[in-house]
Parts: sequence; C-alpha cells; structure tokens
Amino acid sequence: MTLDPVLAKIDTNLPAATDRLLDLLRIPSISTDPAYNADCDKAADWLVADLQSIGFEASKRSTPGHPMVIAHSGGTGPHILFYGHYDVQPVDPLDLWDNDPFDPQIEDTAKGKVIRGRGSSDDKGQLMTFVEACRAWKQVHGTLPANITLFFEGEEESGSPSLTPFMAENAAELTSDIALICDTGLYGDSTPAIITQLRGLLGEELTIKGPSLDLHSGMYGGIAMNPARVLAKIIAALHDENGRITVPDFYDGVPELSNELAASWDDLKFDGEHFLDEVGLSKPAGELGRRPLEMIWSRPTCEVNGMWSGYTGDGFKTVLPSQAHAKISFRLVGTQDPLKIRENFRKMVNAMLPEDCTVTYKDHGASGAGQMATTHPAFAQAKKALSDEWPNAAAYVGCGGSIPIAAYFKSILNMDAMLIGFGKDDDAIHSPNEKYDLSSFHKGIRSWARILHEMTS
Amino acid sequence: MTLDPVLAKIDTNLPAATDRLLDLLRIPSISTDPAYNADCDKAADWLVADLQSIGFEASKRSTPGHPMVIAHSGGTGPHILFYGHYDVQPVDPLDLWDNDPFDPQIEDTAKGKVIRGRGSSDDKGQLMTFVEACRAWKQVHGTLPANITLFFEGEEESGSPSLTPFMAENAAELTSDIALICDTGLYGDSTPAIITQLRGLLGEELTIKGPSLDLHSGMYGGIAMNPARVLAKIIAALHDENGRITVPDFYDGVPELSNELAASWDDLKFDGEHFLDEVGLSKPAGELGRRPLEMIWSRPTCEVNGMWSGYTGDGFKTVLPSQAHAKISFRLVGTQDPLKIRENFRKMVNAMLPEDCTVTYKDHGASGAGQMATTHPAFAQAKKALSDEWPNAAAYVGCGGSIPIAAYFKSILNMDAMLIGFGKDDDAIHSPNEKYDLSSFHKGIRSWARILHEMTS
Repeated sequence: MTLDPVLAKIDTNLPAATDRLLDLLRIPSISTDPAYNADCDKAADWLVADLQSIGFEASKRSTPGHPMVIAHSGGTGPHILFYGHYDVQPVDPLDLWDNDPFDPQIEDTAKGKVIRGRGSSDDKGQLMTFVEACRAWKQVHGTLPANITLFFEGEEESGSPSLTPFMAENAAELTSDIALICDTGLYGDSTPAIITQLRGLLGEELTIKGPSLDLHSGMYGGIAMNPARVLAKIIAALHDENGRITVPDFYDGVPELSNELAASWDDLKFDGEHFLDEVGLSKPAGELGRRPLEMIWSRPTCEVNGMWSGYTGDGFKTVLPSQAHAKISFRLVGTQDPLKIRENFRKMVNAMLPEDCTVTYKDHGASGAGQMATTHPAFAQAKKALSDEWPNAAAYVGCGGSIPIAAYFKSILNMDAMLIGFGKDDDAIHSPNEKYDLSSFHKGIRSWARILHEMTS
Repeated sequence: MTLDPVLAKIDTNLPAATDRLLDLLRIPSISTDPAYNADCDKAADWLVADLQSIGFEASKRSTPGHPMVIAHSGGTGPHILFYGHYDVQPVDPLDLWDNDPFDPQIEDTAKGKVIRGRGSSDDKGQLMTFVEACRAWKQVHGTLPANITLFFEGEEESGSPSLTPFMAENAAELTSDIALICDTGLYGDSTPAIITQLRGLLGEELTIKGPSLDLHSGMYGGIAMNPARVLAKIIAALHDENGRITVPDFYDGVPELSNELAASWDDLKFDGEHFLDEVGLSKPAGELGRRPLEMIWSRPTCEVNGMWSGYTGDGFKTVLPSQAHAKISFRLVGTQDPLKIRENFRKMVNAMLPEDCTVTYKDHGASGAGQMATTHPAFAQAKKALSDEWPNAAAYVGCGGSIPIAAYFKSILNMDAMLIGFGKDDDAIHSPNEKYDLSSFHKGIRSWARILHEMTS
C-alpha cells in the first residue's frame, strides 16, 4: 500500500483532526480525583465511538478502577499493539493557568502554533497521533496495513492499579508482535527519538519514631533522642563524597556504557551546561567522572523526594518531634534488582538506628530498568521512517524516567516494546499551561503512517 | 503583720477564689490568633476590675499588640513586682479535648481535684495564686505588707513582641526591688522549687535553595543538586559521635557544674530512667558522660525543631525539590554568647554548601542563659517560706527551658528576678486537656502569702 496519498490525506485532515483532539481535551478525565470518575468514563466512551467511526471493533472494558479501551482492526499483516492513556493529571494550582485547562485553544506563539490544555501532550495529543494515522490510512486504502490493536488505559496518572491484572487476564487478546508506546518526547526540538533504555524505580517511605509524643525541647532537649537528627544522619550517609550511593551491593548489575552507545550519545552533543542552566544550576551533581547524559540516562540515583519532621509552619515552636519521615527513590539501571536493593537499603537504615528509635517502611513500588530490544527489526524500520519525516535523523536515546508499561509488555505478554513520542521539553506536562506543538501533532501523525509503512512493506 | 489569719482567710476564700479563676478561664484569650483579639482585651479588663476590687490602682495599658495590665498597691515596705501573663495557647487539636477548653471544670481524679481548661496552669491559675494571696492579706490586715506592682502581659504565648519596648518606656514605673515570676513548676509532686538557672535560646531557620524550580527526578535525578541531601548533611554534622555540638567555639562559656550544685542536684535523686520511660525512651541521648539533670538543666543543646522539603503528602511524587528548610534551636548555658554562636553556626553552614546551593536564614530570637542572683536575700526567704508550706523542703533547681522575661528584668530594669511556680509535669500545658491541680492553686496562694511574710517581717 502506498504511503504518499496517506501523508497527503493526513495533511488535508489536520484541521478536523485538531478539532477532534480539542473535543477529547474538553473532557476533564483526571483519574486520581474521584470527583472526575464520570469524566474518565466519558473520555473512554468518546474514544470507543471515535475508533468505531474509523472501523475498529472497539469497546470499553471495565476494571476495578477506570475502564480500558480496547480496539481491534482485524486484518492481515504483523500484529501491532499501540498503547496510550486517556487520563490526565490534576490541574492545580489553577491560578497559574492562563486559560481554563479544559477549554483547549490553538495559540500562536513565537515558536509556532500550540495546542494548549491539560492532556494536550500527556497523553491525549500523543495518543491521537496514532489514531489519526490509522484514520487517514483507512480512508485512503480502505483497510490498514497491519492487524492493529489499540490499548488505552485511564489510570496512568494515578499509578495504573488495574493495568497488570488486566494485561494478565486478557493476555491472549493483547499479545502482539510488538507494542508501540507514545508517551515520550523528541530529543531537542527536531530530532525524533527512539528510547532504548528506561531507568527503573524503587520508592521507599520511612518513618523514624523516637519519643512516644512530641516533647518540649526546653524540658527534654539534650536528653531525649531526636528522630529528625537520626533521619538526617541516614540521608547524609546515602552518598559518599564522590556522589556514589552507599547502599551495600547497590552497583551490582550496573553496566558500563558500551563504546558504541557512548559514541552515539556523544554525537547528540548534549549541552549539560545549558540543561542545568535552565533550572538555575551550573555543576553536575552526580557521580564524579561521569558524562552528564550518563547521569540522567544510564547511572542509578538515590534522591530524597520529600522529608518532614516537627513544626513546619510560620514562626517557631520549640518542639522535639516524635517522628521524622522521608520519601526516597532510587532510579535503577541495567540489571539492578529492585527487591534486593530495597532489602539492603532497609538493612542499612536499621543498622544506623540508635537504641531508642524504631523505623517503619512504606513500599511505593519497585520496578527494574528497561532495556529495549533494539535488534528487533521494528527499531531499524522506525528509525528510517522517522528520519524521513523529520529534519534530523532519528536517535536512539536513553530515558531517565521510569515507564513501567514497557517492562510489563515483556514480563506479562513476552512482547518487545518501542517507545516513540513527539513531546517537547517545554510542554509543561503535569504543570500549568500544558501544551503540545501543532507541529508535534501533525508530524507525529505522519511519523506513525511512515512507521506503519516501513513495518509492513 | 501576722501570717496565720491570712492563711486561714485563704482557706476560707478557696471556693470563691476558684470561681474567680473559672471566670477568667472562660475568656478565650488566645493571643496568637487575631480572631481572639477582643477576648484578650476582655481578659485584661477582667483583671483590671478584679484588681480594683482588691484595692489596687489598676489600669489597662495599650501596646501595638495586646494590652498590658499594670496595678500598684502603693504603701510602704519593699517594692515587689509580680509578673504573669493572661494570654493562652491555641487549643487545637480540639477533638483531643474531653471538654470545651473554655468551659473549665473542677474534676475529681485519682490524684485529687484538678481545674481543667486552657490556661488553668499556663498561666492564669498561677497568676491568680499571687492575686488571691494579696486579696486575703488585704482582707485580714486592710493593707499589704509591701509596695506591690502587678505586671501582666497578653502576648507571652505569641513571642511577647510588645514586652521589651513597654518595659523600657515604663522603666521608672516598673523598676522594683525584685521581680517574682510565677510561670514554672514544682520539682516532682511535692517539692517546691526556686529556679536558679535558665537556659538561653537561639532560634535559626534556614532555607537551602538548589534548582530554581521543583524538578522531575526522572529527568534530573543524578545530575541536579538536591537541597534535601545538602540539608541532611548539615544537620548530621551538627553533633559528633559523642553527642557534642560541632559548631566552632560552641562550648566557650559553658561552665562545669560546681561541686555544691552537683551535690545538691544529686540530692534531688532525679530518676532519669523514669523521666525518659514516660515518653517512650530508655537511654539519655545527650553528651556522653553527663548526668541526666545536667543534660536538661546545665548543658547546651542543638535540636531540630522542624524540617521539610519536597513532597510530604500521601503517596509518592518523584519530585527533586528546589528547596529544603529547617528550624533549629540551641539551648544555651553559662555565658555562651548567642550572637557569636549564630555567627559561627551560619559560617559553618555556609562552608558546607556546594557550589550550586544558596542559603537564607531567618532569625527566631537569641537570648543568653539566665543565672539567678541566689545571694539576694529574697531567695533564702522564699526557700524558708516554701519549705514551711510544702511536705518537702524547697529546692534550688535548674530549668531547661528559656523564660526570657527573667533576663529582661535584669537587662532593661536592672532588677533581679525569682521564678517560683506550682505547675506539675502532667499539667499538659500547650496541649489538650490542660489542668492545674486544685492543691497547686490552694497551696500556691498560701505559698505567696508565706513568701510575702518572710520578705517583709
């Protein structure tokens, strides 16, 4: 099946496609807030109706949480699954938005037209790039070039509690030759990127208890153990003076960067100085002697995401707090074992506790790093397709974040996954004034048409 | 003037005196909350009216904050000033109170009758012990044995912003031979105590800033400086492994306990184990090799009263925080110089900052330790009077807390002060279900009558 008329159709369709996206963006499908449960349902219904209008056999599938949307094209060719999510992040602080986050607008900016609104980039806009590619293809050829399954969830922004059970229960229906995931970004402004590795994530919350109640620091200061001091000592001990993490055996399974990958990353000419400068910093704070890109893509980390103890309001209160808390996360790479690291971390903390303190832990998830199967032919095909569409050739890049769905496809359905997306660093996802460039939307749709073409011709 | 009929009158007056205290306790004079401004005023008016009914020349004196109440008896004899405060702490969490905090009740408990309600112990009940002693004396003898000035403030629980300017502006009117302060407690249940030393207090709040905004720990984790880590390292460095504080020159001016004082404190048979056990602890956490009483009365401390950074709500957010905060206080003894210590503390913190972090400080007060003039004849007189009233002889004790008013009398009015009070450790001041033992109130009134008698006969 020929590509050019599909690309032409995509160009013609763009105004209507944009209107459809705006329609979907008007539904406030905030998954984490039960006040928006009906809206999540409405977004699922909207997708089902839209996919049926294209010719998919689409249905809303209930879960204990928000519904999944599953659609099948049927037909011949490779079986390709596409994943996205229709739920969005909360919008507070609302007063930092220039417009109603659910009254999306096309805006002219110095960098071109953007679609402004909650979910425009994460992930409704990205999700619709693939849907619109399918629509145009079907309009031109009457059929799709592959057997396509669409898989949209509504809980990605609230921890995906129903995702893995649903995948396991519907394994036969979902298992395909490859999964395409559109929830990532370009490298820079115009280099399409295929993610080859994702960091894993281990989340731990600890509560250190000392005295049985908050004490007056005048009466008990000096004699009573202060758990805030204990917590500070523990956090301070998690890194050595060279920025290395001190949890025992932490670096087991952390690979050195291969020469090829190092060379290809060097080709990206990542400007670490600029990257830091944009957030008010000047000096890489990770392990001594590592490239900036290594620090964010291929080295493991340990970060304090939150800590609190005692009085945190205005003024001063001479309290000696009874408890101190921290939320700590580890980004993991290579074959680091999150459960082993959790065990060693807890052992290390336990060993640092003085006699009069106890600690309790809350588990906030543990997922290993993801290594994409770049030898799968789809990777080379996508790379060519993307390079044809964009000004710059496509790059294989790492990703410092953790997108557990990629690993789930492997572990639950034994499928490889490929992450490609068209977001930009300044899209303000999860923040006020989220936007998606109209060019990301347009060229994203064209990119998927090209990728489908490469994968099936 | 004879004492015995005064003591008998006090016994007779007790029911009426208790009713008067309950009346005063019904006024919710919470000084820190502007919603109660009118109530603070009402409490001041109540006191003025009550003192006038005794025969004092009493007036409410405006300040930029809540008013002072000043009353003079006139007359001959030594000029004695009595200080107390009519404002009270907030009452939240309200649901932990068994009754309305401002509907005070006399309750029978296993340990005897108590007056339950906010301010019963801190400080309305204690303040009224002196007022009732004056009332009974006046009723019996028609005059007081001394020239007495009463000085009540309404901002003690909110930092006393108007206190020192008021003292300076009204120095001539307030300056007396000695100041009596009733805002402390018994030693144990039945040993009257005269405070001989108070710890000073230096309060510091620091904000460490790293990135210019909160970052995503997936995108920036590893490469961006995390200010929570920096803060933890600073806090962890404030004590060495023997519990000594590491701020340079911190121990300049910290005296060793004299042999006499050590012996007299040993006589108190302080049960450090029980003291800690009551708050769920078992091991003194202060400097190695120090007596428990030293740790709380005569050794300096450094405590974290609050710290916070990043996400502290439910669940998990992979934020790399842009700021980290701590409220840190030092209790000071001997001749430690709070301003010098502040300077050295800030220098130490500054020196620990990595290149990409800045710090700002907020000053939460700096007062040196107080050493009472125990050679002033009033101390021996009060000791005898108290020993006559209570089952145990009166003790000279230290106080771990900081009561700056004592130092202000010295520095602003060049007067010595004597702190005597009748509160108990379980009075729950600043907490829900505050109470004052009826016996503290009754024997407190009798104690002041005896002290006035000793000081003037």
